Amino acid sequence: MLGEFGIIQRYFAEQGPSRGDVRVGIGDDAAVVRVPEGMDLALAVDTLVAGVHFPRDTTPEAIGHKALAVNLSDMAAMGAEPVWATLSLSLPEEDPAFLKGFSRGLLGLAGRFGIALVGGDTVRGPLTITVQISGLVPRDGALLRSGARIGDRIYVSGTLGDAGAGLALALRQTAWDDRRGDALRHRLDRPEPRVGLGILLRGLATAAIDVSDGLRSDLGHILAASGVGARVEVDTLPRSQALRAFLPEQGQLELALGAGDDYELCFTVAAGEEARLMAAAAEAGVAVTCVGEIERDVGLRLVRSDGSPFSTERTGFDHFQQS
Amino acid sequence: MLGEFGIIQRYFAEQGPSRGDVRVGIGDDAAVVRVPEGMDLALAVDTLVAGVHFPRDTTPEAIGHKALAVNLSDMAAMGAEPVWATLSLSLPEEDPAFLKGFSRGLLGLAGRFGIALVGGDTVRGPLTITVQISGLVPRDGALLRSGARIGDRIYVSGTLGDAGAGLALALRQTAWDDRRGDALRHRLDRPEPRVGLGILLRGLATAAIDVSDGLRSDLGHILAASGVGARVEVDTLPRSQALRAFLPEQGQLELALGAGDDYELCFTVAAGEEARLMAAAAEAGVAVTCVGEIERDVGLRLVRSDGSPFSTERTGFDHFQQS
Repeated sequence: MLGEFGIIQRYFAEQGPSRGDVRVGIGDDAAVVRVPEGMDLALAVDTLVAGVHFPRDTTPEAIGHKALAVNLSDMAAMGAEPVWATLSLSLPEEDPAFLKGFSRGLLGLAGRFGIALVGGDTVRGPLTITVQISGLVPRDGALLRSGARIGDRIYVSGTLGDAGAGLALALRQTAWDDRRGDALRHRLDRPEPRVGLGILLRGLATAAIDVSDGLRSDLGHILAASGVGARVEVDTLPRSQALRAFLPEQGQLELALGAGDDYELCFTVAAGEEARLMAAAAEAGVAVTCVGEIERDVGLRLVRSDGSPFSTERTGFDHFQQS
Repeated sequence: MLGEFGIIQRYFAEQGPSRGDVRVGIGDDAAVVRVPEGMDLALAVDTLVAGVHFPRDTTPEAIGHKALAVNLSDMAAMGAEPVWATLSLSLPEEDPAFLKGFSRGLLGLAGRFGIALVGGDTVRGPLTITVQISGLVPRDGALLRSGARIGDRIYVSGTLGDAGAGLALALRQTAWDDRRGDALRHRLDRPEPRVGLGILLRGLATAAIDVSDGLRSDLGHILAASGVGARVEVDTLPRSQALRAFLPEQGQLELALGAGDDYELCFTVAAGEEARLMAAAAEAGVAVTCVGEIERDVGLRLVRSDGSPFSTERTGFDHFQQS
């Protein structure tokens, strides 16, 4: 056994990206980092538990990727640039194959975004990963949930419902169509945090959130924080070819509205700003789709393109209520 | 079940201290905080697992206290002022009595130091608590492990070995002497982070660490990081009356050298600075004791007051290697 100092040192400290603003990295009682003048600091923490937040058959590399990705997604939703991360890893045993894959997944994503791992702790216990991320955002420039205004357009990035379909496939453990099934499972295992888009939405989006618990639930947080309501036209919800092949329309829409884990952004933009938004989306290389509008009446109204109400039983899920 | 949003909101967000430098607190995708100009940011994370880092019979209030205290101790060892914390709580079930006691313990300590809880996550699982703390320290002014110089005096704060004796009592589950047993158990359950002393050691201590794994092990980190050795005169190790009553001398010294969880500071100070140090210790209201000296020859030499070597089997413990 290497023990806790050895694990962090061997698998993480020596292999991650380094940054000039990290004055003291892993190996002292705390890391010391420098925040540039004019920037606020954004802080978020997320914990993933095996069998709750990812299926038990998830590869170590995917677990490492996802543990960091869900935190980067929080930074994206704030318009913050993620810069420093700390990791707390609870492991049943010291398993070099797991640690190699896990660190490759986590540090691979960290490397793409230039994020330094500045602290870590390992303990013995059921597989549980907590990452805290620190990010930078211009002073008073963070994207909040509370800024949506009546008449704003509601957008989502990418496609919705894929991760939910990937989870259904994982739990059924059926083969389905291999190639398209793999694509859906990939969305569950390897969420792509929309960090670049989030940064480009500074000063443009009036409110933002990441879709971790399902659009219906997460848009609901924007509406509650902003004191407004919304109408979402469900036929406009962006859905992948794989999802369309996987399920009939009602099922697609239920996943797109109610399933979590897509880690796309949901945000609002003033009605006149569509051209600026489309330029930003093109620069970020991410598709964005208008799915509805902010309205005065509180509550979320789901409608079909003919104006008739859309009904579904599913809502967003709450991880704590799963088991 | 309140679910994760409800737990953090109900038990933590509404009851902790608030700070003017928290622009956005709990309730958005991330917190947004402001670091003052001229200050560096210190970041540390620690995870406590029930039955590993504290006995299973520890009260919820003590668990809450300790989960934050061990992180504050890291800040103290850096000379940093702790300001913002995030919490990740893994709980077997939503237990209101536990949550009430736990939050009282954690927020009570947070309140004493004016620390705002700015983020949280709750998941279902075995009782495990991860706290990340952010602190402020003057630019390039953090106390590191690497600054000890030959001839520096080695000091420790408070008394050593009490928490180790408290753990022995907890594991034996014997009554011993109630009052003094309670005092030792209190040191295990309610470590007092030496934050005030750490801040006063800025510009005075040449190196510092907190005694979490045992003096021998933790002083060893200073020696390794500084590329020096040391002589410690074991008869000078500060020991409480309760510890002296609990064990014969050899046992006292073994706990003082090898047991963890005391969360005192171990630090080095240049030989001519004793008067300044004593003034700082008096201001902090914490006793400090000189226990040895930094030497050129690497390694740690434990000696009795007559100069003969002191030998013990124990070394610091590594939490990951416990079970």
